[in-house]
Amino acid sequence: MTGAGARLCCVFTSFTASGVRKGGVFGRRFIISQHRNMAGGAPKIDFNTKHLKKDGRTSDFFPSEAQSHKIPERQWQLSTVIPPVPETPQFDRAVRTAGCVLRDPLPPFAGKLRVYNMRYCPYAQRTVLALNAKRVDYEVVNVNLVDKPEWLTTKSAFAKVPALEIADGVTIYESLVTVNYIDDVYPQRPLRARDPLRRAQDQILIEAIGPLENVLIKMVRAPETIDEAALKAYFKGWDLLQEELKKRGTSFFSGNEPGYVDYMIWPWIERLLAFQKKDERIKFDTPKYKLLGEYIQKMAKDPAISQYAVPDEVLLKFFEGFISGNIVYEL
Amino acid sequence: MTGAGARLCCVFTSFTASGVRKGGVFGRRFIISQHRNMAGGAPKIDFNTKHLKKDGRTSDFFPSEAQSHKIPERQWQLSTVIPPVPETPQFDRAVRTAGCVLRDPLPPFAGKLRVYNMRYCPYAQRTVLALNAKRVDYEVVNVNLVDKPEWLTTKSAFAKVPALEIADGVTIYESLVTVNYIDDVYPQRPLRARDPLRRAQDQILIEAIGPLENVLIKMVRAPETIDEAALKAYFKGWDLLQEELKKRGTSFFSGNEPGYVDYMIWPWIERLLAFQKKDERIKFDTPKYKLLGEYIQKMAKDPAISQYAVPDEVLLKFFEGFISGNIVYEL
Repeated sequence: MTGAGARLCCVFTSFTASGVRKGGVFGRRFIISQHRNMAGGAPKIDFNTKHLKKDGRTSDFFPSEAQSHKIPERQWQLSTVIPPVPETPQFDRAVRTAGCVLRDPLPPFAGKLRVYNMRYCPYAQRTVLALNAKRVDYEVVNVNLVDKPEWLTTKSAFAKVPALEIADGVTIYESLVTVNYIDDVYPQRPLRARDPLRRAQDQILIEAIGPLENVLIKMVRAPETIDEAALKAYFKGWDLLQEELKKRGTSFFSGNEPGYVDYMIWPWIERLLAFQKKDERIKFDTPKYKLLGEYIQKMAKDPAISQYAVPDEVLLKFFEGFISGNIVYEL
Repeated sequence: MTGAGARLCCVFTSFTASGVRKGGVFGRRFIISQHRNMAGGAPKIDFNTKHLKKDGRTSDFFPSEAQSHKIPERQWQLSTVIPPVPETPQFDRAVRTAGCVLRDPLPPFAGKLRVYNMRYCPYAQRTVLALNAKRVDYEVVNVNLVDKPEWLTTKSAFAKVPALEIADGVTIYESLVTVNYIDDVYPQRPLRARDPLRRAQDQILIEAIGPLENVLIKMVRAPETIDEAALKAYFKGWDLLQEELKKRGTSFFSGNEPGYVDYMIWPWIERLLAFQKKDERIKFDTPKYKLLGEYIQKMAKDPAISQYAVPDEVLLKFFEGFISGNIVYEL
């Protein structure tokens, strides 16, 4: 079921505010591979194995109390130079997207905030976007979700991504849970609204993209099951987003820069932008959604988003695997 | 599909910290009916129609900006006398549970925090429990979810309950959104943990009851579809709750009194306690779950819970309607 390349290695990649900083291939065939550094700085390799636990984690739902109090004070790097915004989002093909598979060992925790990720997962993208927006230094461990590594349930009891490791063995998961935590702990550039009512409305707006998620899931798995009712709800979803954006009268849902709603709904917008090229029925790049179209253009240029964007053809190729039965993680 | 009684009227009931205070039947056949007051005080009728909008609300996703700023300062009543805790939770049969149906008018907003509710809905129960725990004064408008009132989408764009009306026409919905808002706005007895990590873990624990929800849904709609995998996940869910409770070493998940996790998962525990009497396969009242059993007994005695508890036979009778096709709201 997995691509041939996916079994070769377990990849982790470290991101900083300025883009991809360094990456490594971990396993018995240990290799540090260096990737394009968008900010141009020299990549530093600070790989550290002293935290490696050979026997892996216990399967406790949460780590023990002792572990949960070992959280170090969070370090974050605020780049003084904001990277230039690419006109067209660039997908860094050098970033290895193959994920850890069944027998791959767990890369040792080196004290850096870590995201257990799948490169094309919209939920995990939420966590990545929140960290990018706040310019938090973190590393990524990609996971193969078809042939899951054995240790995954020690990081997420649900065996899903994203999971966020905040100290050695202290992990939280579920996309919005990780983002809320990030927003609680890293005060720079608050993502959620301060006002309780606006905060509630923002949460509802995120729930309201359910019909978009629904159509995306059907598009990926069985496009023929997208019926009139699903399409009606889908366009009602876009109507609702556009109406709300118009009512708020700001460039983004959160104001003059993207915030919680913007980043939390973006992963679905990004994927549907690709799929509308394939299926006319779901096309929303139309005059009716002019305001939304302008919004999407502005969002695509946001550095937190553009540094993690995937070209449409890569996304489509990945998702084709769900129908063909051959999901290839390394594209 | 609805019970005969459900079409007769639109019921709203007002609760206070001390239990059911007053209730009224609203419609063309306007009646104020008086219910048992658990605290023994004289019920006050302060029905006020001055806010009535004959033409109903607009179908805007959220109210206009002007409306959203009309929120009055929240008034809450802290009873000086804590009502006695009944040994066995009492279900007040006098509380009318029939909900508003298709043509029923919207009861006028009288300035009091209002919950759009369905008496047996576990999600809406979360909102009610949070308000009870904080002893906030509020009123309830029950809704028939089979034959929904026309105005429901003006209160919840998803046409679901709970919805919480915090000012005339300013409504938020989705159970956890309403509870988070309540916890943000009413500072007394904070429900959520202060520590971001514990808060994240609590949110995950609430997500972790998914397999319990899944079995409950199947139990209500098609018990024959509960297979080995569902049962395995179900008991893993109970294991996980008991392990976590043991690890925390407190009477409740939130400490020495019930809090966020406790109240948010309780509605499913309450229903499964009833259903395990009907179906041996899901029985969790066993020696293995001794600690959990003690926890459940303590929870059942909590005033926020006991004042809103429904006897097992009433719950079972209500849910039988999903299989028979005759859902009766007024039991």
